[in-house]
Amino acid sequence: MEVAAVEGLMQDYELSLQHVLWRVERLHQNKEVVTKRDEGIHRTTYGEMVPRINRLAGALKRIGVKPGDRVATLAWNNNRHLELYYAIPCMGAVLHTLNLRLFPQHLEFIINDAADKVLFVDQTLLPLLKPLLGKIPTIETIVLMAEPGAPPPEGMPQMLDYESLLAAESDSYPWPKLSERMAAAMCYTSGTTGNPKGVVYSHRSQFIHTMGVLQLDNLGLGSNDVLLPVVPMFHANSWGLPYAAGMAGSKVVFLGRFSADAKSIVELAEQEDATYLAGVPTIWIGLAGYLKETGKRLPKVRTVVCGGSAVPQALMETMDSLGLHILHAWGMTETSPLGSVARVPADTKPEDELRLRLTQGRVTPGVEIRITDPTSGEELPWDGVAFGEIQVRGPWIARGYHNGYDPDKLTEDGWFRTGDVAKISPEGYIQIVDRTKDVIKSGGEWISSVELENAVMAHPKILEAAVIGLPHARWDERPVVYAVARPEFKGQVGEDEIKEFLKGKVAKWWVPDEVRFIDEVPKTSVGKFDKKVLRANAVPIKEGVKEEARK
Amino acid sequence: MEVAAVEGLMQDYELSLQHVLWRVERLHQNKEVVTKRDEGIHRTTYGEMVPRINRLAGALKRIGVKPGDRVATLAWNNNRHLELYYAIPCMGAVLHTLNLRLFPQHLEFIINDAADKVLFVDQTLLPLLKPLLGKIPTIETIVLMAEPGAPPPEGMPQMLDYESLLAAESDSYPWPKLSERMAAAMCYTSGTTGNPKGVVYSHRSQFIHTMGVLQLDNLGLGSNDVLLPVVPMFHANSWGLPYAAGMAGSKVVFLGRFSADAKSIVELAEQEDATYLAGVPTIWIGLAGYLKETGKRLPKVRTVVCGGSAVPQALMETMDSLGLHILHAWGMTETSPLGSVARVPADTKPEDELRLRLTQGRVTPGVEIRITDPTSGEELPWDGVAFGEIQVRGPWIARGYHNGYDPDKLTEDGWFRTGDVAKISPEGYIQIVDRTKDVIKSGGEWISSVELENAVMAHPKILEAAVIGLPHARWDERPVVYAVARPEFKGQVGEDEIKEFLKGKVAKWWVPDEVRFIDEVPKTSVGKFDKKVLRANAVPIKEGVKEEARK
Repeated sequence: MEVAAVEGLMQDYELSLQHVLWRVERLHQNKEVVTKRDEGIHRTTYGEMVPRINRLAGALKRIGVKPGDRVATLAWNNNRHLELYYAIPCMGAVLHTLNLRLFPQHLEFIINDAADKVLFVDQTLLPLLKPLLGKIPTIETIVLMAEPGAPPPEGMPQMLDYESLLAAESDSYPWPKLSERMAAAMCYTSGTTGNPKGVVYSHRSQFIHTMGVLQLDNLGLGSNDVLLPVVPMFHANSWGLPYAAGMAGSKVVFLGRFSADAKSIVELAEQEDATYLAGVPTIWIGLAGYLKETGKRLPKVRTVVCGGSAVPQALMETMDSLGLHILHAWGMTETSPLGSVARVPADTKPEDELRLRLTQGRVTPGVEIRITDPTSGEELPWDGVAFGEIQVRGPWIARGYHNGYDPDKLTEDGWFRTGDVAKISPEGYIQIVDRTKDVIKSGGEWISSVELENAVMAHPKILEAAVIGLPHARWDERPVVYAVARPEFKGQVGEDEIKEFLKGKVAKWWVPDEVRFIDEVPKTSVGKFDKKVLRANAVPIKEGVKEEARK
Repeated sequence: MEVAAVEGLMQDYELSLQHVLWRVERLHQNKEVVTKRDEGIHRTTYGEMVPRINRLAGALKRIGVKPGDRVATLAWNNNRHLELYYAIPCMGAVLHTLNLRLFPQHLEFIINDAADKVLFVDQTLLPLLKPLLGKIPTIETIVLMAEPGAPPPEGMPQMLDYESLLAAESDSYPWPKLSERMAAAMCYTSGTTGNPKGVVYSHRSQFIHTMGVLQLDNLGLGSNDVLLPVVPMFHANSWGLPYAAGMAGSKVVFLGRFSADAKSIVELAEQEDATYLAGVPTIWIGLAGYLKETGKRLPKVRTVVCGGSAVPQALMETMDSLGLHILHAWGMTETSPLGSVARVPADTKPEDELRLRLTQGRVTPGVEIRITDPTSGEELPWDGVAFGEIQVRGPWIARGYHNGYDPDKLTEDGWFRTGDVAKISPEGYIQIVDRTKDVIKSGGEWISSVELENAVMAHPKILEAAVIGLPHARWDERPVVYAVARPEFKGQVGEDEIKEFLKGKVAKWWVPDEVRFIDEVPKTSVGKFDKKVLRANAVPIKEGVKEEARK
């Protein structure tokens, strides 16, 4: 008796994406999948898609794809990509979505690192593929996703044709029994620091993540929603939304060939009655501008998920004024990606609401979070003051990277180091204040470069300011400010004025050793401060001279 | 490379109720847990409860509870019961909630079958425990849950006192690392056919079930809800709602000592701003009557989950007219219990809405369903016509019972036989038409006793009718109707009139062999037709005489 009751007597049901496909097939046949294509709107249903998914699995098998093989996609958001989302993992192979915005050398590295065997490519993306040819030896087969009758691409090797492959197969595929620990999909990190690294999702992680996405207090997608993901399908599986839509039975609307072009987004959302949008802040900045300019509104949209980077306050306020409710979410490729969501309790005081919605929110069910002291590694209190690296654990959090890169990302006790630095309020609201690579390590304590930048930029004569840590003999690192004066105050603001201004606003030891005035802060391609450039060109701190400033 | 990518690289995070406790402790400290007690309202918070849960775990360990030990509770819905819900499974033992409405001999059987080691009992339930004393030898310790200073119970053996036990322990307990397959809780079936059987939930099943309960299209409980469960905590873990509330951070309101007394429910719901109620139809029939009578309303309540048995149409309409939205759900102890929920798509035609809400709804994410042919065992189509036994599988579905009873409940291919007979529409709406034990097996085909009863009861002279199958030499079983005439038509309606009435309304071979008029249909304690009594007293069918009626 003792033994029998120690183990639960529940079914050993393997959690897998086949369950999502089962729901798509049995419950959601009539729900539409709409894709904007260059030649016009393409309209299908889950019901029509299922036989095609079966055919696609048959085709994959026919061209030699075996369980565990990586099958890459170089594709926009469209219905064929969605078919690949189901067929590849459900037949036991690994869906590897390639980020088409990467440099060719990164793409080359990634395909070789993953040892992809087959590559599916959108016709419109052939120019991106061309420079890679001859450099990706593991790819045995390339499948072109084009309209029937499209002319064969010139100057390219022989490719198979997606639609012809499907036409040769049967409407029903004998799906294999999968184990939940098997790999289902992989995504590479963007590789801003070093080479991109492969995150390998399991069927189990995808299943549980999908269960979570649908929770009311989480992303809360539902069967009555019309999802228009403006986040690409190669970006952390479009934040898990395509599978969530399949599980719930939401209509899906794809933008096809992608741009931040607000007009197309608004038009498609209007035409298809979209209720649910998701994308990065840049997209919504463009969209808000377009709505203000044209006077158009999207009254049917009930949720605009915004992630990828922190939501600027002005954006949230503008969107609110346009009737669009931004839901701020935080996560990363390594967290599948959902980590936290900034939902605000119904009884929040109006004056606190915006502030809380601008935080990274509270950790979602399924994920545990902690912040740790940089020196001792001990957990820090959730007091809204102490900040440390965010570490997470849970069933959809990475335990490592493909090919074993960066084993130190996991702590000894099994938590994933996110590289984000945050403080957490007693109620659990996460406020990211920096990245570990940017935070200034001064005498065993951390100084948030972001908070210091904000403090400097609050000075009326300052346009923008970037803060980096530079080596210091005594304190390891000390903060140095690179400031740009507002045009009207150029040459009329000095180092001492800034330091004086900061007193009482930041801790004494946060006051920077130097304030260096420059004409412009160097920026990355997406408009973020490029601190790598600042660091590379920085002259050393003049030690000793300014020592007393810190006392 | 091949091998590395076959396995997902996600964390081996054990899914357990400790995660729910973590959320209660870290995120929901300020949320209230309110209990109505005989002596007045008891008010606490999750934050105050967590140290008590730790103390309780310490006490369990001190009195000798080891991993896998069954710890029974004989308790109403109250805060101490909620503490037991967390402390017992999270310290590795098995929470065994006893159904206090069972006969003493069933309780005795259950406690012995589970070999419970410790029993926690509400002071008000001592009279129920008394007749069991001396018959439950595995119970080593009884813990009395009473207010401090309550007089010791007379004529009972020595018991430990809950509050004194907690007072002796520390606010922090070193929670052990659990494996997700470990038993977390057990519930017994009600034993309407034979002895009750123990269903053993694992930590994994409880975790995933809780994730599901919170989904928007599922029960959709959220952090802004105030949950008032009118379903007892011993009834399939109160449908999983207490853990769901803990995961989401919903305020919980407990009725304490329980009755279907509508006045207390309404008063407590009003006082505590309840938004979310859950219970069986009987409760809502009483509540609706009370609201109509008093003119009171509960405008803050947004959802009334109704399960346990089918929702009568009149009840749903009455509740609608009172502004209370019934959400019909189906499940059983063996399904944790959530199996399906009758949510209706937003674009449903008004004339279809009520009909769909009265079905058992559509299967929830996480559960797969099929109906099978009684003879061949093959899966039947979802055409809204064919009916067969519902079989389910999934991570929170039983694979067997404690002590190995009834191994045939699992099919050879691993699906759980529910004993419910249903048809399913092409859109997936489940309509239960019978129980396998009541369905009439005639010539290898099934006749739904319930549908036949409804057809007979549609006759204007009939008050109520119960249909049972009786042995038949040629057809195995044939239907016999036991009908009660409306008082004003007593003696004025005959067998032939009923059979004539049924022609064209049911399949020809469904027309019953006999219609027997009686004064009253025997009922069970909960008011259902007691077909066991009818069967036990039934005279055999006069075979041959009525043979032609079926041709």
